[in-house]
Amino acid sequence: MNEFDLIRRLTLTVPGNDQVIVGPGDDCAVVQTPDRGQWLLFKTDAIVEGIHFTKEAAPEQIGHKALGRCLSDFAAMAGTPLHAVVTLALPPDFEPVRIERIYDGMGALARRFGVAIVGGETVRNPERMILSVAVIGEVAKERCILRSGSQAGDAIFVTGTLGGSLAGRHLEFEPRLVEAKWLAERFPVHAMLDLSDGLAGDIRHLLNASNVGAELLASAIPISRSARDLSKLPGTQKSPLVAAITDGEDFELLFTLPSTNAVTVLDQWKSVFPETRLSCIGRITEAPGLRLRTKDGIRPLSDHGYVHFT
Amino acid sequence: MNEFDLIRRLTLTVPGNDQVIVGPGDDCAVVQTPDRGQWLLFKTDAIVEGIHFTKEAAPEQIGHKALGRCLSDFAAMAGTPLHAVVTLALPPDFEPVRIERIYDGMGALARRFGVAIVGGETVRNPERMILSVAVIGEVAKERCILRSGSQAGDAIFVTGTLGGSLAGRHLEFEPRLVEAKWLAERFPVHAMLDLSDGLAGDIRHLLNASNVGAELLASAIPISRSARDLSKLPGTQKSPLVAAITDGEDFELLFTLPSTNAVTVLDQWKSVFPETRLSCIGRITEAPGLRLRTKDGIRPLSDHGYVHFT
Repeated sequence: MNEFDLIRRLTLTVPGNDQVIVGPGDDCAVVQTPDRGQWLLFKTDAIVEGIHFTKEAAPEQIGHKALGRCLSDFAAMAGTPLHAVVTLALPPDFEPVRIERIYDGMGALARRFGVAIVGGETVRNPERMILSVAVIGEVAKERCILRSGSQAGDAIFVTGTLGGSLAGRHLEFEPRLVEAKWLAERFPVHAMLDLSDGLAGDIRHLLNASNVGAELLASAIPISRSARDLSKLPGTQKSPLVAAITDGEDFELLFTLPSTNAVTVLDQWKSVFPETRLSCIGRITEAPGLRLRTKDGIRPLSDHGYVHFT
Repeated sequence: MNEFDLIRRLTLTVPGNDQVIVGPGDDCAVVQTPDRGQWLLFKTDAIVEGIHFTKEAAPEQIGHKALGRCLSDFAAMAGTPLHAVVTLALPPDFEPVRIERIYDGMGALARRFGVAIVGGETVRNPERMILSVAVIGEVAKERCILRSGSQAGDAIFVTGTLGGSLAGRHLEFEPRLVEAKWLAERFPVHAMLDLSDGLAGDIRHLLNASNVGAELLASAIPISRSARDLSKLPGTQKSPLVAAITDGEDFELLFTLPSTNAVTVLDQWKSVFPETRLSCIGRITEAPGLRLRTKDGIRPLSDHGYVHFT
């Protein structure tokens, strides 16, 4: 099966939506322009075999992750993803059925959020598979949430639980699109991002963009069950807390809002999203830098998120 | 230099435009929504070291080609590219200076056409470099040219000269954005595409989409100087005509319009684009299939563009 045959087969089953004018098969995809009150959002991301997934991973999960990472970035802006294009870099001995299953996984996630897959390319990468995805979407101008709006005194929140994602969650996480939109519609969220490289590393992007600092409360950081389980394995050096702070691929939302709203958001969240934890993990400070408060006092967190606990 | 440092350095110099609200550095890029009379265009493409360019190619040319391929697809719709995002897959031993020069080449082309580079990612690909580019842009609804509009009796045109692109042109071609827009504004262009896999292969996409056939005139096909030069090399099997018909990477425009407009378009083209050839190479037929007329008669062109001439 050559490239053209493969693409033809794949494009028979990809999801569309009512914004698509011309889907896969022409030089460019053609889609409707969003309404005047919207801004356009644009994002690309890629995953590489042997780095972001293993050869043995279920193909559906590989497809899910490739698209899910981009959708998570749309959640971080409180945006709505609309259209995706996909580039597959494939070794010459690829199995068409495996590629179709990758597309099945990507298509299932796309359908769930109304995202159309409107085009793609395949190229040869002799040694390993790479999936590169680009997504466009929209956000109401007054609802778009950047990384740069945090203010001293804000409370810092994180969704879900953190750490140990590589035990499985990194292949099946659900982008927090619904939760993000719910938050943006009801609360004055000052800044938001999604956690992909680990809490300690990622929060720095928000702090730098907002020109503020933060103090996190160690006991408030929500540690995932898999971070706890992994820490019990023989030879593990990482405590569950360190895993929650430094492991990547959580794809949870980190956001800040005025501390006066903190109790209300926690309360309402619990009734709307009873199965997903929301934790207030600290506060934004005028003093720059990132600090962690433990029962032994306050200590700075090192630049790349690696902290040495006793 | 790690990923973050590299991205920070690269994003200092990338071109923007007046449509950009948030460029590189947030979860998604944020850009203005086009006007109501426009459709959105969306395209992705990728180039792979050792396949689309050699390790020895000038970095600026690699960047030029990576973006240029996408822009050529915008030309094929008579569209205007506006924003690009770039994914770089890099071996661990990449040289930062080389990457900056790749970005210089990409940035120079982007600037020339008013395209902003609004985001990107870097990932690790241990064995070779890959550049994946996605571009969004716009086209006036009434000007958008698909592959599907050709009608029996249309004259078929091609810009520039064909074949032998791998001798150098594939790294420095200029996307035909200006020419395409000029055509779409003045003539009833029925269908258009850009030639990336070779005339005989690519024209089939247009014929299939339009549900028509075509007869090409061998003597009218514009053969490039490099196709002629390459055919003189010892051991070369390919005639210049076969090279012009089957070589890929020309990035010229192929389009059809009513034969009644043929003389006018050739005339006006010559005065507006005196340095670029425009050739009428045949006509669209009701009978399906692709045929080539030579002095020895008419013969079908084989399915993948490979023809055996005596």
